[in-house]
Amino acid sequence: MRRMGHGLHRRVRIEPGKRADLAKIDADDTLGLERDEAEELVRERQERLEVLQGYLKWGAAQALVVLFQGMDAGGKDGAVRQLVAGLNPMIVNFVAFGKPTKEELAHDFLWRIRREVPERGEISLFNRSHYEDVLVVRVDELVPEPVWRPRFEVINTFEAELARQGTTVVKFMLHVSRDEQLERLAERATLPEKHWKHSADDMRKRGQWDAYMEAYEEAIKRTGTEVSPWYVVPADRKWVRNAVVLDTVVHTLEEMRLPTPTPPEDAAEELLNRPAGD
Amino acid sequence: MRRMGHGLHRRVRIEPGKRADLAKIDADDTLGLERDEAEELVRERQERLEVLQGYLKWGAAQALVVLFQGMDAGGKDGAVRQLVAGLNPMIVNFVAFGKPTKEELAHDFLWRIRREVPERGEISLFNRSHYEDVLVVRVDELVPEPVWRPRFEVINTFEAELARQGTTVVKFMLHVSRDEQLERLAERATLPEKHWKHSADDMRKRGQWDAYMEAYEEAIKRTGTEVSPWYVVPADRKWVRNAVVLDTVVHTLEEMRLPTPTPPEDAAEELLNRPAGD
Repeated sequence: MRRMGHGLHRRVRIEPGKRADLAKIDADDTLGLERDEAEELVRERQERLEVLQGYLKWGAAQALVVLFQGMDAGGKDGAVRQLVAGLNPMIVNFVAFGKPTKEELAHDFLWRIRREVPERGEISLFNRSHYEDVLVVRVDELVPEPVWRPRFEVINTFEAELARQGTTVVKFMLHVSRDEQLERLAERATLPEKHWKHSADDMRKRGQWDAYMEAYEEAIKRTGTEVSPWYVVPADRKWVRNAVVLDTVVHTLEEMRLPTPTPPEDAAEELLNRPAGD
Repeated sequence: MRRMGHGLHRRVRIEPGKRADLAKIDADDTLGLERDEAEELVRERQERLEVLQGYLKWGAAQALVVLFQGMDAGGKDGAVRQLVAGLNPMIVNFVAFGKPTKEELAHDFLWRIRREVPERGEISLFNRSHYEDVLVVRVDELVPEPVWRPRFEVINTFEAELARQGTTVVKFMLHVSRDEQLERLAERATLPEKHWKHSADDMRKRGQWDAYMEAYEEAIKRTGTEVSPWYVVPADRKWVRNAVVLDTVVHTLEEMRLPTPTPPEDAAEELLNRPAGD
């Protein structure tokens, strides 16, 4: 079981310093998986995730940030939900970074991110992140290039600082095709239960597709590091996306070499032998 | 399908002003459910919950607090996880209220609670709550009775204020038996993956069982209201607990009469007919 998946995380990892040619990465790729196999892998990884989260919390020395980037309707919420099935939501910090508030804009771009970094033993899941400050900010020219370009270095310094403190950052770019995105945006426009996600602005950003791909490619190339690499996930098929994300997060936690609790062997006996009126 | 469950929420609701005789409420009760039926009901309610959360978010006028109280190992985390399966975790605020920090103690007891009240359109799930301030605080005599006793009225005023703003509060007391609790505490003491939940203090609090039951009974009697009733959930069997919690939360949201989005009929057509190079 543990060997299932054939190292999916390795197949979608972008080597540090390498350019990800997004136009050539097939968003509809199955990575050789069958759907049944992928779903079984997700369940297996969710179970393992629960165990690893227990160790992380018990050790209380390391922490994990998992961040999701991608075009609108790329499946960021969906990926989070699959992760959550293997987590105790009470010790996970869920953050969706939207358009910055006035207060957030009055600080440096990492201010709101730093506030949401997990405490030791915990996990933060970010829907969007500090990468928006070199993506939408660049494409919409919200600040001039001399302001956003130095941010690559600021981000690398920030993530290296986290790594030194024992906080690992996993970065996913959920890669959907333009066709699949259109289908999903149409659902949001028409289905009452998905209508809360509908936004007229999504169509405008869709028109900037090529500019976004260029911005993503440079961000990935400039900020992928050995300790904190980027993973570009084929996301047109939700079951492929889920398998890749779960496999990668579990792999990352395994690599963190979390200490394992060793409860005393007689602990249960001692508890159970107490008199009824303890 | 929608009629499944035979009004579970009604069967565990404590009528406002009534005393819940906890010693007489069977924690092992199945409420006449079979396990298969209960699990099917949970899935059905999770699906409905997802739809209702979409309406809540879209309407952005009302909000929901679901709070869980109960003895240690009563299944508060487990109940939250079943709810989460029907929710988008990015728009839920998960809060575990532990031992107050120095900063929290320097304020009134509702200060930390008010900070975590959901914004309009969202849901907060509380693992423990302001009720700790009339439970552990009372049993351990952390403050004298003239301090904690007036809190019942303060709580009622607070929850009535939330109700007037459109925020509904659902209150669960997860009711486990002493035997079942001991089994679960023993697991925490011995299983590496559950060891992070192990706490020596849990055994001490177990010794105060009767004092806790008395405190719960008074809290439930004094703070159950028409708008914000208490539900005492038989929690020895996790599948019974899950069915009751899901049924009750969905019932509560249905009663909130959330407005339903009515997307324009031609929305999808308009999107899909845009030229490829939109």
